[in-house]
Amino acid sequence: MSVTEAQGFSASGVAAGLKSSGAKDVSLVVNTGPKVISAAVFTQNRFAAAPVLWSRQILRGGDGRVVVLNSGGANACTGPQGFADTHRTAELVASSLSAQGFDDFGAGEVYVCSTGLIGEPLNMMALEAGVSSAIAELSPNGGIMAAQAIMTTDTKYKVSAVVEHGYTIGGMAKGAGMLAPGMATMLSVITTDADVDPQFLQQALSAATAQTFDRLDSDGCMSTNDTVILLANAASGVTPNQENFQTSLTKVCEELAQLLMADAEGATKEIHIEIIGARTESDAVTVGRAVSRSNLFKCAMFGEDPNWGRILSAVGTTDAFFEPDQVDVTINGVKICVGGGVGEDRSLVDLSQRHIDVIVDLHSGEDRALIRTNDLSVGYVLENSEYST
Amino acid sequence: MSVTEAQGFSASGVAAGLKSSGAKDVSLVVNTGPKVISAAVFTQNRFAAAPVLWSRQILRGGDGRVVVLNSGGANACTGPQGFADTHRTAELVASSLSAQGFDDFGAGEVYVCSTGLIGEPLNMMALEAGVSSAIAELSPNGGIMAAQAIMTTDTKYKVSAVVEHGYTIGGMAKGAGMLAPGMATMLSVITTDADVDPQFLQQALSAATAQTFDRLDSDGCMSTNDTVILLANAASGVTPNQENFQTSLTKVCEELAQLLMADAEGATKEIHIEIIGARTESDAVTVGRAVSRSNLFKCAMFGEDPNWGRILSAVGTTDAFFEPDQVDVTINGVKICVGGGVGEDRSLVDLSQRHIDVIVDLHSGEDRALIRTNDLSVGYVLENSEYST
Repeated sequence: MSVTEAQGFSASGVAAGLKSSGAKDVSLVVNTGPKVISAAVFTQNRFAAAPVLWSRQILRGGDGRVVVLNSGGANACTGPQGFADTHRTAELVASSLSAQGFDDFGAGEVYVCSTGLIGEPLNMMALEAGVSSAIAELSPNGGIMAAQAIMTTDTKYKVSAVVEHGYTIGGMAKGAGMLAPGMATMLSVITTDADVDPQFLQQALSAATAQTFDRLDSDGCMSTNDTVILLANAASGVTPNQENFQTSLTKVCEELAQLLMADAEGATKEIHIEIIGARTESDAVTVGRAVSRSNLFKCAMFGEDPNWGRILSAVGTTDAFFEPDQVDVTINGVKICVGGGVGEDRSLVDLSQRHIDVIVDLHSGEDRALIRTNDLSVGYVLENSEYST
Repeated sequence: MSVTEAQGFSASGVAAGLKSSGAKDVSLVVNTGPKVISAAVFTQNRFAAAPVLWSRQILRGGDGRVVVLNSGGANACTGPQGFADTHRTAELVASSLSAQGFDDFGAGEVYVCSTGLIGEPLNMMALEAGVSSAIAELSPNGGIMAAQAIMTTDTKYKVSAVVEHGYTIGGMAKGAGMLAPGMATMLSVITTDADVDPQFLQQALSAATAQTFDRLDSDGCMSTNDTVILLANAASGVTPNQENFQTSLTKVCEELAQLLMADAEGATKEIHIEIIGARTESDAVTVGRAVSRSNLFKCAMFGEDPNWGRILSAVGTTDAFFEPDQVDVTINGVKICVGGGVGEDRSLVDLSQRHIDVIVDLHSGEDRALIRTNDLSVGYVLENSEYST
């Protein structure tokens, strides 16, 4: 499991004092070769954080070999100083690693990710000391420590790995609030020792995130810092079949996305909203997203109340192709709404378990999509009313 | 105040047993002439309730003189039986009133509005008895009773009136949850004794709701039953100046919208989000709406935490015209974000009062818009997790 499951990667996670709790807050993931290939997807938020602006340049440069990540501060909405801080962090990582006997390389090969409160400058003195410690701690067994150091309101670290076809794909992720898509969500680093070309790696990552992280919509709020980075080094010597690689990569992303949903802030329910019978996949995603963003539906799930009217009223705000008198809704196996009207008895629906399955059949075609969300709980409100103070 | 403030209108509100609490649940508003003119706006939800489908026909017919309203059941997603129930209600109102000496008229002159739980058939036996009682109770002083009988989770009845220029405009409204716009929100009946032509009346109502009810976004959830109906009868004999009439009507809608915001489910804060410096009014509305729908922002307001990063991250999801490094945010007079970065000290912001003013300056033009919303509170979650059960 984790980002050090694949051959040729080292990682570490240390406590630098960015978090007032004293928990770990600086992570490093290093590709030790032989090849240096990477791909990445980023938030679509127009207030992209300084590390996102920086990391987009690293992706374009094509030589990303290291990822340095910090929790305890998002470095978002921090202006030119924030960008300078990110640049300085990358410089420090590159010069320190080069001094330690790694291939000589510059800041242009260092991705930076940050997560935490928006609009506060980073404590650079603490971060710089943390980077030095993280370099000293680098290890081919450091993946779990790295996963721990990127946690914010996460209650568990999140890792996943698939070993198939002679190569390995492993990853880590964090994310508990501000969890909604925009190409990617939250922070995640994935590594592989497969030998893949850069164009295919980017295509595969974009396709995998579109089907997994992008279909997670916990609270409808898109972050300024969302980043998924995939590092590859060919250490296994295996050039994968593209279809197999895509399947394995999607599996890792899928598992990480599920872990994110399971640990979302205040969540008491994990809800799968499956839209079937859609004319297009895009229609299915639009409808699923509308339901996942209905606070009233989410409150009803928290209250274990099969209030299907709140599902239809959300579906009815979309421009998807459907006839209102054709739509069916099934909750946990009970077809509670048939043809846009009253179906089976709502008292038959058992919502006492943590997992809830909602199926909306638009009866308009053959396409489908699955959106994952959570309930809206008292815990979510309390946690998010107290986050920065 | 209320729908009977203008001359030539009678109203009533009675308890028919649709609500298990035994509270009033059937209202009637009758235009007693001399003229019969009306206008209306309806929800844009594609799962429009039976009474909305019915009332759209009444508007097209051009002869709407009576509004019958019930709480205790939305009659939404109830299929052909629901529509038949609405039709029967209108027939009963028309035949009973005609029998009582009103001008002879048919169901085609009776608007119907319903509010309550979606997806449950109406108790027609109770409703029919209620209609008979409501007719017996009709009075030129019945406006307050009528306003009480449309309440659902509202804690207060909501009425307003303006008397100016020789005529009167008065109205009532209900709405506490599922409060977000789509041409109209919630139920409202407004009456006037001004002498206006139907085309102008509809234009004036559409313009007034677009600036008031449509700018209220309490919880982002659009109802299946939203309806605003305006009845006019020329009883004052005064043909108004169009601009004056528009101003007075907007004033009544504005006051009703404010009352709705003040009584929104679980709200502990009333938040004005003013977007200024927008290139277009549409951009301003888009941005204001995005902020008003951020659960993280709303939780922060509940927690009295001036977490402006959550405002920018919501603004950043829109396609409005702005440069991220030009945007300022002011909360209760403190310019906490300047040029997309850190501004005045967040500790200067006092959020202890119920009213909160947020100003987002896009620095991209001269247009502006005000969106009203509420915080996301523990009370909202609790109330909406228990509504139907």
